[in-house]
Amino acid sequence: MAFFNENYTKLSESYLFATIEQRVSAYKKANPDKKVISLGIGDVTKPLPKTCLDAMHAAVDEMGHAETFRGYGPYEGYAFLRDAISEGDYKSRGIDIASDEIFVSDGAKGDTGNIGDIFAQDNIVAITDPVYPVYIDTNVMAHRTVKIIPCKEENGFAPLPPSFHADIVYLCSPNNPTGSVLSKPQLEAWVAYAKENQAVILYDAAYERFISEDGIPHSIFEIEGAKSCAIEFRSFSKTAGFTGTRCGYCVIPKDLMLTAGGETAPANKLWLRHQSTKYNGTSYIIQRGAAAIFTPEGRKEVTELIDSYRENARVIREGLLAAGFSCTGGVNAPYIWLKCPKGLTSWQLFDELLNKASVVGTPGAGFGEMGEGFFRLTSFGSHADTVEAVKRIEAAFH
Amino acid sequence: MAFFNENYTKLSESYLFATIEQRVSAYKKANPDKKVISLGIGDVTKPLPKTCLDAMHAAVDEMGHAETFRGYGPYEGYAFLRDAISEGDYKSRGIDIASDEIFVSDGAKGDTGNIGDIFAQDNIVAITDPVYPVYIDTNVMAHRTVKIIPCKEENGFAPLPPSFHADIVYLCSPNNPTGSVLSKPQLEAWVAYAKENQAVILYDAAYERFISEDGIPHSIFEIEGAKSCAIEFRSFSKTAGFTGTRCGYCVIPKDLMLTAGGETAPANKLWLRHQSTKYNGTSYIIQRGAAAIFTPEGRKEVTELIDSYRENARVIREGLLAAGFSCTGGVNAPYIWLKCPKGLTSWQLFDELLNKASVVGTPGAGFGEMGEGFFRLTSFGSHADTVEAVKRIEAAFH
Repeated sequence: MAFFNENYTKLSESYLFATIEQRVSAYKKANPDKKVISLGIGDVTKPLPKTCLDAMHAAVDEMGHAETFRGYGPYEGYAFLRDAISEGDYKSRGIDIASDEIFVSDGAKGDTGNIGDIFAQDNIVAITDPVYPVYIDTNVMAHRTVKIIPCKEENGFAPLPPSFHADIVYLCSPNNPTGSVLSKPQLEAWVAYAKENQAVILYDAAYERFISEDGIPHSIFEIEGAKSCAIEFRSFSKTAGFTGTRCGYCVIPKDLMLTAGGETAPANKLWLRHQSTKYNGTSYIIQRGAAAIFTPEGRKEVTELIDSYRENARVIREGLLAAGFSCTGGVNAPYIWLKCPKGLTSWQLFDELLNKASVVGTPGAGFGEMGEGFFRLTSFGSHADTVEAVKRIEAAFH
Repeated sequence: MAFFNENYTKLSESYLFATIEQRVSAYKKANPDKKVISLGIGDVTKPLPKTCLDAMHAAVDEMGHAETFRGYGPYEGYAFLRDAISEGDYKSRGIDIASDEIFVSDGAKGDTGNIGDIFAQDNIVAITDPVYPVYIDTNVMAHRTVKIIPCKEENGFAPLPPSFHADIVYLCSPNNPTGSVLSKPQLEAWVAYAKENQAVILYDAAYERFISEDGIPHSIFEIEGAKSCAIEFRSFSKTAGFTGTRCGYCVIPKDLMLTAGGETAPANKLWLRHQSTKYNGTSYIIQRGAAAIFTPEGRKEVTELIDSYRENARVIREGLLAAGFSCTGGVNAPYIWLKCPKGLTSWQLFDELLNKASVVGTPGAGFGEMGEGFFRLTSFGSHADTVEAVKRIEAAFH
């Protein structure tokens, strides 16, 4: 028999959200009369902006005529989308990111998972805890040494640069799962750490659109010097409801150099080589849908979408606080990080909420050891469901 | 500086088709008046079947209403598509492949590139020469020992099981680039080789729909015993013109076991773990488009599409033979494998054809050492362009 990658055996048996899905479906089978409300996986519920739908309809039509048909597209994404991103997400904020520093993909999950491929196995990787499981699992799969940066309640769950050396650091702000954000001074400290350690920061900014407070960086490239030490990941999943439509991108500045055996190589070129070898471009139809987000009408619709989820976040946060729970997040992020009451473990709270309130959340323990004792709720449900879920949680615990 | 994956430096500087694209664009810039005809990259030119367009329009509409909106889908693909594939591509041919042995993806390139992730680094990989560069490049990136199986003119370019041991073997039939196919006895010999060596066959059947002769296997799972030693890759790119729409799938039978450190693990579960960690499912809209291929109307349209490309293949093949060239392929495959005339190298022929005839093909050397002296032409152009290209090639060389 051919040999399998033994590192897979070091992973927990199934991916967190797959486990939750299994438990929820078992509960639903056993309780067909109960209406389950999911504030769990972080999947959105509102329809796509009309501008995006129109753009995709038009693109589908183009695919129906030889004159406008599109075959293989550029591995790195179409210029119309890369230009729109460069302008709309960066230059308009005074951040100088060129189109050829942007790589369009089918989502940030794949990018944050696959980016490891351009790095050597012997890099030391620093990962925060609690954390989006993809960062840690993909590095375990690649047999890399992973060191943990604990994020604690007393620091507002913000990760601080560690005393140990790392070559690669994963940061996520606004944070999944804790809903915390990194301030400008905190990010400056991280860039300084990266310079000192000649490390690369892999910066997941998938929830950037949820930042509501002034002064919070929307991109790591707002920090001086970040272009030579950081890669940024973004997604249209939460911005515009693309979770099932699939489109995202990463930014790899041309200044970012990596080293190996005395040689240096630009990370931008390495990733282009990766994408041209293992990826064949994002669907043309989907890229057209994504580009529509950057039109004036698209922006307006996205703002309305985000505002409605923000309102849900407020309802959850304020409802839980008023009911005597302790929680953080939900201001600059779609996630509310609830402290488990009554000394419950996070999986115990998961089961209690499911069984007593038919509400699904995500146990903090699924995000790492430091997540134990906490529980993630998301603001992506419908407004009515969100209000109802908060009521049910209150009722179940009081 | 963080360390990059040094294996990337062992790759030729840019991916074959990227190199071709650069040369062609330089030629076009220098010769704006010339109409360049590409029989090169193997990209299709005909519009998508109407059934697929209708299905995608309907799916886009569904994304516009909260009641029918789809967020994250199953990592392994929607049941409606997996069921359609199981029935339409396998059971209808008497091949027993279940839906949960099918993993929907955004195309066969990504799958054949990423599948390596579930295998250990220390597998010995056998790859045919000439070959689709993705197989070899992705294994070089993963630091695996690659052994070459030369495919020679005297064998009709069919790969024969080697005398050396391999743990993983890549086969592609109908073959890219040579247009050859593996007969049933040849495939049986390969399955016997895999059993003897406890090897896994990675079987790329992306061009299956082009098989026109009776008795040629459409799937490796037509061969007894293959379900415990093979993974099959398929694509809708060439079948239904999805090169820019992006959808494909792989089949990993539950019987296929891999080993490591005395343990065994089903490849199907390992790949599910890979996909649930590094992939977030194929776009719902695109999956609906792909499922439409399996409707009666879809099948009819696909047959017409394939027939028109087959007719192009006939025009190229017969035209070249009549003009005194030597070539193979084009009967069960969309590729014609031309022997370079006048002792030209394949890149010399590339430049001659581009400069004298404004026709783009793919140099055989780009597919490996054994491809030197040969040249790949594809039947995916429009009919008029194909006829014109053959005329120009004749004129340039006679």
